[in-house]
Amino acid sequence: MGTAAAPWKQLLFGAIEANSHLKHSSYAQLATIGVNGRPSNRTVVFRGFEEKGERIQINTDLRSRKIQELKQCPFSEMCWYFSDTWEQFRINGKIEVIDASNPDQNKLQLREKAWFANSLKSRMTYTCPAPGMPCNSEQPNQEVKLDPSSGPVADYCLMLLEPEKVDYLNLKSNQRLLFSSMISGTGEKCWTSEKVNP
Amino acid sequence: MGTAAAPWKQLLFGAIEANSHLKHSSYAQLATIGVNGRPSNRTVVFRGFEEKGERIQINTDLRSRKIQELKQCPFSEMCWYFSDTWEQFRINGKIEVIDASNPDQNKLQLREKAWFANSLKSRMTYTCPAPGMPCNSEQPNQEVKLDPSSGPVADYCLMLLEPEKVDYLNLKSNQRLLFSSMISGTGEKCWTSEKVNP
Repeated sequence: MGTAAAPWKQLLFGAIEANSHLKHSSYAQLATIGVNGRPSNRTVVFRGFEEKGERIQINTDLRSRKIQELKQCPFSEMCWYFSDTWEQFRINGKIEVIDASNPDQNKLQLREKAWFANSLKSRMTYTCPAPGMPCNSEQPNQEVKLDPSSGPVADYCLMLLEPEKVDYLNLKSNQRLLFSSMISGTGEKCWTSEKVNP
Repeated sequence: MGTAAAPWKQLLFGAIEANSHLKHSSYAQLATIGVNGRPSNRTVVFRGFEEKGERIQINTDLRSRKIQELKQCPFSEMCWYFSDTWEQFRINGKIEVIDASNPDQNKLQLREKAWFANSLKSRMTYTCPAPGMPCNSEQPNQEVKLDPSSGPVADYCLMLLEPEKVDYLNLKSNQRLLFSSMISGTGEKCWTSEKVNP
Protein backbone atom coordinates (compact mmCIF):
# COMPACT_ATOMS: atom_id res chain seq x y z
CA MET A 1 0.00 0.00 0.00
CA GLY A 2 1.54 3.34 -1.01
CA THR A 3 0.41 6.96 -1.31
CA ALA A 4 1.50 9.42 -3.98
CA ALA A 5 0.19 11.99 -6.47
CA ALA A 6 -1.29 10.08 -9.43
CA PRO A 7 1.38 7.36 -9.41
CA TRP A 8 -0.36 5.54 -12.30
CA LYS A 9 0.36 8.56 -14.49
CA GLN A 10 4.04 7.64 -14.72
CA LEU A 11 3.13 4.10 -15.75
CA LEU A 12 0.76 5.48 -18.38
CA PHE A 13 3.36 7.93 -19.72
CA GLY A 14 5.79 5.03 -19.94
CA ALA A 15 3.31 2.93 -21.92
CA ILE A 16 2.42 5.81 -24.26
CA GLU A 17 6.12 6.44 -24.92
CA ALA A 18 7.02 2.76 -25.41
CA ASN A 19 4.12 2.20 -27.83
CA SER A 20 4.27 5.55 -29.64
CA HIS A 21 5.56 3.98 -32.86
CA LEU A 22 2.10 2.41 -33.27
CA LYS A 23 -0.56 4.69 -34.75
CA HIS A 24 -3.27 2.96 -32.74
CA SER A 25 -1.47 3.43 -29.39
CA SER A 26 -3.55 6.55 -28.68
CA TYR A 27 -6.81 4.62 -29.22
CA ALA A 28 -8.74 3.33 -26.23
CA GLN A 29 -12.26 2.01 -25.64
CA LEU A 30 -14.68 4.12 -23.66
CA ALA A 31 -17.61 2.40 -21.96
CA THR A 32 -20.70 4.29 -20.85
CA ILE A 33 -24.24 3.34 -19.81
CA GLY A 34 -26.66 3.43 -22.74
CA VAL A 35 -29.98 5.27 -22.40
CA ASN A 36 -31.62 1.82 -22.32
CA GLY A 37 -29.43 0.86 -19.33
CA ARG A 38 -27.23 -1.48 -21.35
CA PRO A 39 -23.49 -1.05 -21.76
CA SER A 40 -22.20 1.05 -24.64
CA ASN A 41 -18.59 0.91 -25.85
CA ARG A 42 -16.59 2.63 -28.59
CA THR A 43 -13.06 3.54 -29.61
CA VAL A 44 -11.91 7.07 -28.77
CA VAL A 45 -8.65 8.94 -29.23
CA PHE A 46 -6.60 10.10 -26.25
CA ARG A 47 -5.95 13.83 -26.71
CA GLY A 48 -3.58 14.31 -23.81
CA PHE A 49 -4.01 15.33 -20.21
CA GLU A 50 -5.45 18.63 -19.10
CA GLU A 51 -2.57 20.98 -18.40
CA LYS A 52 -1.38 20.71 -14.77
CA GLY A 53 -4.05 18.11 -14.08
CA GLU A 54 -4.84 14.47 -14.46
CA ARG A 55 -8.06 14.72 -16.43
CA ILE A 56 -7.99 12.95 -19.79
CA GLN A 57 -9.06 14.91 -22.87
CA ILE A 58 -11.24 13.30 -25.54
CA ASN A 59 -13.04 14.99 -28.43
CA THR A 60 -16.56 14.23 -29.48
CA ASP A 61 -19.50 15.43 -31.52
CA LEU A 62 -22.46 16.98 -29.68
CA ARG A 63 -24.76 14.87 -31.89
CA SER A 64 -23.12 11.53 -30.95
CA ARG A 65 -24.97 9.03 -28.76
CA LYS A 66 -22.47 9.19 -25.90
CA ILE A 67 -23.48 12.79 -25.18
CA GLN A 68 -27.04 11.68 -24.40
CA GLU A 69 -25.72 8.74 -22.40
CA LEU A 70 -23.37 10.87 -20.30
CA LYS A 71 -26.20 13.29 -19.51
CA GLN A 72 -28.07 10.38 -17.90
CA CYS A 73 -25.01 8.76 -16.28
CA PRO A 74 -21.71 10.68 -16.31
CA PHE A 75 -19.56 7.69 -15.33
CA SER A 76 -17.32 5.78 -17.68
CA GLU A 77 -14.52 3.26 -17.84
CA MET A 78 -11.81 3.70 -20.44
CA CYS A 79 -9.96 0.51 -21.27
CA TRP A 80 -6.60 1.17 -22.87
CA TYR A 81 -4.60 -1.77 -24.10
CA PHE A 82 -1.03 -1.27 -25.33
CA SER A 83 -0.33 -3.99 -27.86
CA ASP A 84 3.46 -3.78 -27.91
CA THR A 85 4.13 -3.78 -24.16
CA TRP A 86 1.06 -5.88 -23.19
CA GLU A 87 -0.13 -3.34 -20.62
CA GLN A 88 -3.76 -2.55 -19.83
CA PHE A 89 -5.15 0.49 -18.01
CA ARG A 90 -8.76 0.52 -16.88
CA ILE A 91 -9.50 4.14 -15.99
CA ASN A 92 -12.76 4.69 -14.15
CA GLY A 93 -14.27 8.09 -13.43
CA LYS A 94 -16.73 10.84 -14.19
CA ILE A 95 -16.81 12.72 -17.48
CA GLU A 96 -17.46 16.42 -17.87
CA VAL A 97 -18.64 17.52 -21.30
CA ILE A 98 -17.73 21.03 -22.39
CA ASP A 99 -19.80 22.28 -25.31
CA ALA A 100 -20.33 25.72 -26.83
CA SER A 101 -23.09 26.57 -24.33
CA ASN A 102 -20.81 26.29 -21.27
CA PRO A 103 -21.12 29.44 -19.12
CA ASP A 104 -17.54 29.16 -17.76
CA GLN A 105 -15.03 31.21 -19.76
CA ASN A 106 -12.07 29.11 -18.58
CA LYS A 107 -13.76 25.96 -19.79
CA LEU A 108 -14.58 27.52 -23.14
CA GLN A 109 -10.90 28.43 -23.46
CA LEU A 110 -9.92 24.81 -22.73
CA ARG A 111 -12.32 23.72 -25.47
CA GLU A 112 -10.91 26.24 -27.93
CA LYS A 113 -7.36 25.16 -27.17
CA ALA A 114 -8.26 21.51 -27.70
CA TRP A 115 -9.97 22.40 -30.98
CA PHE A 116 -6.84 24.03 -32.39
CA ALA A 117 -4.72 21.07 -31.25
CA ASN A 118 -6.60 18.96 -33.81
CA SER A 119 -5.61 18.63 -37.45
CA LEU A 120 -7.77 20.52 -39.94
CA LYS A 121 -8.98 17.14 -41.20
CA SER A 122 -10.16 16.18 -37.71
CA ARG A 123 -11.93 19.50 -37.28
CA MET A 124 -13.74 18.94 -40.59
CA THR A 125 -15.53 15.86 -39.17
CA TYR A 126 -17.64 18.13 -36.95
CA THR A 127 -19.16 19.77 -40.03
CA CYS A 128 -20.30 16.40 -41.49
CA PRO A 129 -23.90 15.11 -41.36
CA ALA A 130 -25.04 13.93 -37.91
CA PRO A 131 -23.26 10.68 -36.91
CA GLY A 132 -25.52 7.63 -36.60
CA MET A 133 -28.35 9.17 -38.66
CA PRO A 134 -29.55 7.39 -41.81
CA CYS A 135 -27.29 8.09 -44.77
CA ASN A 136 -28.91 10.33 -47.34
CA SER A 137 -27.02 9.29 -50.45
CA GLU A 138 -29.35 11.34 -52.69
CA GLN A 139 -27.97 14.50 -51.17
CA PRO A 140 -24.20 14.52 -51.70
CA ASN A 141 -22.17 15.90 -48.83
CA GLN A 142 -21.70 19.57 -49.25
CA GLU A 143 -18.11 20.71 -49.25
CA VAL A 144 -17.82 22.81 -46.13
CA LYS A 145 -14.99 25.30 -46.16
CA LEU A 146 -13.25 25.54 -42.80
CA ASP A 147 -10.82 28.38 -42.20
CA PRO A 148 -7.75 27.10 -40.29
CA SER A 149 -7.97 30.13 -38.01
CA SER A 150 -11.67 29.82 -37.14
CA GLY A 151 -12.60 28.59 -33.67
CA PRO A 152 -14.62 25.51 -32.63
CA VAL A 153 -17.83 24.80 -34.53
CA ALA A 154 -21.07 24.37 -32.56
CA ASP A 155 -21.03 20.55 -32.57
CA TYR A 156 -17.50 20.20 -31.23
CA CYS A 157 -17.26 19.06 -27.59
CA LEU A 158 -14.33 18.48 -25.29
CA MET A 159 -14.79 15.68 -22.77
CA LEU A 160 -12.73 15.54 -19.57
CA LEU A 161 -12.46 12.20 -17.81
CA GLU A 162 -11.47 12.57 -14.16
CA PRO A 163 -9.82 9.29 -13.04
CA GLU A 164 -11.06 7.94 -9.70
CA LYS A 165 -9.75 4.39 -9.99
CA VAL A 166 -7.08 2.92 -12.23
CA ASP A 167 -6.61 -0.82 -12.64
CA TYR A 168 -3.20 -1.52 -14.19
CA LEU A 169 -2.27 -4.93 -15.60
CA ASN A 170 1.08 -5.90 -17.10
CA LEU A 171 0.85 -9.18 -19.00
CA LYS A 172 4.61 -9.41 -19.50
CA SER A 173 5.57 -9.18 -15.83
CA ASN A 174 2.20 -10.65 -14.80
CA GLN A 175 1.62 -7.86 -12.26
CA ARG A 176 -1.51 -5.95 -11.42
CA LEU A 177 -1.90 -2.76 -9.40
CA LEU A 178 -5.10 -1.08 -8.25
CA PHE A 179 -4.92 2.68 -7.76
CA SER A 180 -7.71 4.39 -5.82
CA SER A 181 -8.22 8.08 -5.11
CA MET A 182 -9.70 9.79 -2.08
CA ILE A 183 -10.42 13.41 -1.31
CA SER A 184 -8.54 14.40 1.86
CA GLY A 185 -9.87 16.65 4.64
CA THR A 186 -8.14 19.62 3.01
CA GLY A 187 -9.86 18.89 -0.31
CA GLU A 188 -6.80 17.38 -1.96
CA LYS A 189 -7.00 14.26 -4.09
CA CYS A 190 -4.81 11.44 -2.75
CA TRP A 191 -3.94 8.17 -4.45
CA THR A 192 -3.25 4.83 -2.83
CA SER A 193 -2.15 1.66 -4.58
CA GLU A 194 -2.39 -2.02 -3.88
CA LYS A 195 -0.83 -5.04 -5.54
CA VAL A 196 -3.44 -7.65 -6.46
CA ASN A 197 -3.44 -10.98 -8.26
CA PRO A 198 -3.53 -10.60 -12.06
CA MET B 1 -32.12 -1.61 -45.85
CA GLY B 2 -31.42 -5.29 -46.46
CA THR B 3 -32.26 -8.60 -44.79
CA ALA B 4 -29.92 -11.59 -44.50
CA ALA B 5 -28.58 -14.17 -42.05
CA ALA B 6 -25.91 -12.47 -39.88
CA PRO B 7 -24.52 -10.36 -42.75
CA TRP B 8 -22.05 -8.65 -40.35
CA LYS B 9 -20.39 -12.03 -39.81
CA GLN B 10 -18.81 -11.92 -43.27
CA LEU B 11 -17.44 -8.46 -42.55
CA LEU B 12 -16.05 -9.68 -39.22
CA PHE B 13 -14.45 -12.76 -40.81
CA GLY B 14 -12.86 -10.48 -43.39
CA ALA B 15 -11.45 -8.22 -40.67
CA ILE B 16 -10.14 -11.17 -38.61
CA GLU B 17 -8.45 -12.60 -41.71
CA ALA B 18 -6.96 -9.28 -42.87
CA ASN B 19 -5.55 -8.50 -39.39
CA SER B 20 -4.51 -12.03 -38.43
CA HIS B 21 -0.80 -11.21 -38.70
CA LEU B 22 -1.23 -9.06 -35.57
CA LYS B 23 -1.20 -10.95 -32.27
CA HIS B 24 -3.59 -8.44 -30.73
CA SER B 25 -6.19 -8.80 -33.51
CA SER B 26 -8.16 -11.30 -31.42
CA TYR B 27 -8.34 -8.85 -28.48
CA ALA B 28 -11.46 -6.80 -27.93
CA GLN B 29 -12.90 -4.71 -25.11
CA LEU B 30 -15.94 -6.00 -23.27
CA ALA B 31 -18.13 -3.50 -21.41
CA THR B 32 -20.54 -4.56 -18.69
CA ILE B 33 -22.47 -2.78 -15.93
CA GLY B 34 -20.57 -2.78 -12.63
CA VAL B 35 -22.33 -3.85 -9.43
CA ASN B 36 -22.24 -0.17 -8.40
CA GLY B 37 -24.10 0.75 -11.63
CA ARG B 38 -21.04 2.26 -13.28
CA PRO B 39 -19.52 1.05 -16.54
CA SER B 40 -16.89 -1.66 -16.40
CA ASN B 41 -14.56 -2.41 -19.32
CA ARG B 42 -11.72 -4.86 -19.96
CA THR B 43 -9.80 -6.59 -22.71
CA VAL B 44 -10.91 -10.12 -23.59
CA VAL B 45 -9.79 -12.66 -26.18
CA PHE B 46 -12.11 -13.77 -28.98
CA ARG B 47 -12.23 -17.61 -28.89
CA GLY B 48 -14.22 -18.13 -32.06
CA PHE B 49 -17.90 -18.53 -32.80
CA GLU B 50 -20.06 -21.28 -31.42
CA GLU B 51 -20.24 -24.06 -34.00
CA LYS B 52 -23.13 -23.51 -36.42
CA GLY B 53 -24.12 -20.38 -34.54
CA GLU B 54 -23.30 -16.73 -34.21
CA ARG B 55 -22.58 -16.61 -30.49
CA ILE B 56 -19.11 -15.37 -29.60
CA GLN B 57 -17.00 -17.50 -27.24
CA ILE B 58 -14.94 -15.87 -24.49
CA ASN B 59 -13.17 -17.53 -21.57
CA THR B 60 -13.21 -16.23 -18.05
CA ASP B 61 -12.52 -17.08 -14.44
CA LEU B 62 -15.51 -17.74 -12.15
CA ARG B 63 -13.79 -15.54 -9.54
CA SER B 64 -13.45 -12.50 -11.85
CA ARG B 65 -15.57 -9.41 -11.27
CA LYS B 66 -17.43 -9.66 -14.58
CA ILE B 67 -19.14 -12.85 -13.40
CA GLN B 68 -20.82 -10.95 -10.54
CA GLU B 69 -21.63 -8.08 -12.90
CA LEU B 70 -23.23 -10.33 -15.51
CA LYS B 71 -25.39 -11.98 -12.85
CA GLN B 72 -26.88 -8.58 -12.09
CA CYS B 73 -27.06 -7.39 -15.71
CA PRO B 74 -26.34 -9.93 -18.49
CA PHE B 75 -25.96 -7.31 -21.24
CA SER B 76 -22.66 -6.24 -22.74
CA GLU B 77 -21.08 -4.39 -25.62
CA MET B 78 -17.90 -5.73 -27.14
CA CYS B 79 -15.87 -3.11 -28.98
CA TRP B 80 -13.44 -4.65 -31.44
CA TYR B 81 -11.05 -2.38 -33.25
CA PHE B 82 -8.86 -3.76 -36.04
CA SER B 83 -5.75 -1.61 -36.13
CA ASP B 84 -4.52 -2.58 -39.60
CA THR B 85 -7.75 -2.20 -41.56
CA TRP B 86 -9.23 0.58 -39.39
CA GLU B 87 -12.49 -1.26 -38.82
CA GLN B 88 -14.58 -1.19 -35.65
CA PHE B 89 -17.32 -3.61 -34.60
CA ARG B 90 -19.55 -2.76 -31.66
CA ILE B 91 -21.34 -5.99 -30.80
CA ASN B 92 -24.21 -5.61 -28.36
CA GLY B 93 -26.05 -8.49 -26.75
CA LYS B 94 -26.71 -10.78 -23.83
CA ILE B 95 -24.08 -13.05 -22.31
CA GLU B 96 -24.68 -16.55 -21.06
CA VAL B 97 -22.10 -17.86 -18.59
CA ILE B 98 -21.51 -21.61 -18.56
CA ASP B 99 -19.75 -22.81 -15.41
CA ALA B 100 -19.20 -26.25 -13.89
CA SER B 101 -22.59 -26.16 -12.12
CA ASN B 102 -24.60 -25.93 -15.36
CA PRO B 103 -27.33 -28.62 -15.40
CA ASP B 104 -27.37 -28.86 -19.22
CA GLN B 105 -25.11 -31.64 -20.54
CA ASN B 106 -24.83 -30.05 -24.00
CA LYS B 107 -23.61 -26.82 -22.45
CA LEU B 108 -21.10 -28.65 -20.27
CA GLN B 109 -19.79 -30.31 -23.43
CA LEU B 110 -19.41 -26.91 -25.10
CA ARG B 111 -17.46 -25.74 -22.06
CA GLU B 112 -15.22 -28.80 -22.14
CA LYS B 113 -14.55 -28.37 -25.85
CA ALA B 114 -13.63 -24.72 -25.33
CA TRP B 115 -11.33 -25.71 -22.45
CA PHE B 116 -9.33 -28.11 -24.61
CA ALA B 117 -9.09 -25.50 -27.39
CA ASN B 118 -6.89 -23.44 -25.03
CA SER B 119 -3.17 -23.84 -24.69
CA LEU B 120 -1.94 -25.58 -21.55
CA LYS B 121 -0.51 -22.23 -20.46
CA SER B 122 -3.93 -20.56 -20.75
CA ARG B 123 -5.55 -23.38 -18.79
CA MET B 124 -2.98 -22.92 -16.02
CA THR B 125 -4.25 -19.38 -15.31
CA TYR B 126 -7.45 -20.85 -13.83
CA THR B 127 -5.42 -22.57 -11.11
CA CYS B 128 -3.77 -19.29 -9.99
CA PRO B 129 -4.82 -17.30 -6.89
CA ALA B 130 -8.14 -15.43 -7.24
CA PRO B 131 -7.82 -12.50 -9.70
CA GLY B 132 -8.23 -9.05 -8.13
CA MET B 133 -7.56 -10.25 -4.59
CA PRO B 134 -4.68 -8.75 -2.59
CA CYS B 135 -1.36 -10.28 -3.52
CA ASN B 136 0.03 -12.51 -0.80
CA SER B 137 3.74 -12.34 -1.55
CA GLU B 138 4.58 -14.19 1.69
CA GLN B 139 2.96 -17.27 0.31
CA PRO B 140 4.70 -18.17 -2.95
CA ASN B 141 2.45 -19.51 -5.71
CA GLN B 142 2.27 -23.22 -5.46
CA GLU B 143 3.22 -25.04 -8.63
CA VAL B 144 0.02 -26.68 -9.73
CA LYS B 145 0.46 -29.66 -11.99
CA LEU B 146 -2.11 -29.77 -14.76
CA ASP B 147 -2.44 -32.89 -16.83
CA PRO B 148 -2.95 -32.00 -20.54
CA SER B 149 -5.73 -34.58 -20.72
CA SER B 150 -7.68 -33.42 -17.65
CA GLY B 151 -10.94 -31.54 -18.20
CA PRO B 152 -11.95 -28.03 -17.14
CA VAL B 153 -11.09 -26.95 -13.59
CA ALA B 154 -13.88 -25.60 -11.36
CA ASP B 155 -13.11 -21.90 -11.93
CA TYR B 156 -13.10 -22.09 -15.71
CA CYS B 157 -16.16 -20.51 -17.41
CA LEU B 158 -17.22 -20.22 -21.00
CA MET B 159 -19.13 -17.06 -21.89
CA LEU B 160 -21.37 -16.90 -24.95
CA LEU B 161 -22.24 -13.45 -26.29
CA GLU B 162 -25.36 -13.51 -28.45
CA PRO B 163 -25.20 -10.51 -30.82
CA GLU B 164 -28.41 -8.49 -31.06
CA LYS B 165 -27.01 -5.35 -32.66
CA VAL B 166 -23.77 -4.77 -34.52
CA ASP B 167 -22.49 -1.29 -35.35
CA TYR B 168 -19.81 -1.52 -38.05
CA LEU B 169 -17.51 1.40 -38.87
CA ASN B 170 -14.84 1.45 -41.56
CA LEU B 171 -12.51 4.41 -41.12
CA LYS B 172 -10.76 3.83 -44.47
CA SER B 173 -13.88 3.92 -46.64
CA ASN B 174 -15.65 6.15 -44.09
CA GLN B 175 -18.73 3.92 -44.07
CA ARG B 176 -20.93 2.83 -41.22
CA LEU B 177 -23.56 0.10 -41.14
CA LEU B 178 -26.02 -0.73 -38.36
CA PHE B 179 -27.14 -4.34 -38.15
CA SER B 180 -30.20 -5.17 -36.04
CA SER B 181 -31.76 -8.53 -35.31
CA MET B 182 -35.38 -9.47 -34.78
CA ILE B 183 -37.06 -12.73 -33.89
CA SER B 184 -39.58 -13.61 -36.61
CA GLY B 185 -43.02 -15.16 -36.04
CA THR B 186 -41.54 -18.60 -36.64
CA GLY B 187 -38.88 -18.02 -33.96
CA GLU B 188 -36.07 -17.39 -36.43
CA LYS B 189 -33.55 -14.63 -35.92
CA CYS B 190 -33.49 -12.16 -38.82
CA TRP B 191 -30.99 -9.40 -39.48
CA THR B 192 -31.59 -6.06 -41.16
CA SER B 193 -28.98 -3.46 -41.99
CA GLU B 194 -28.96 0.25 -42.53
CA LYS B 195 -26.31 2.63 -43.80
CA VAL B 196 -25.79 5.54 -41.41
CA ASN B 197 -23.46 8.52 -41.25
CA PRO B 198 -20.03 7.67 -39.77
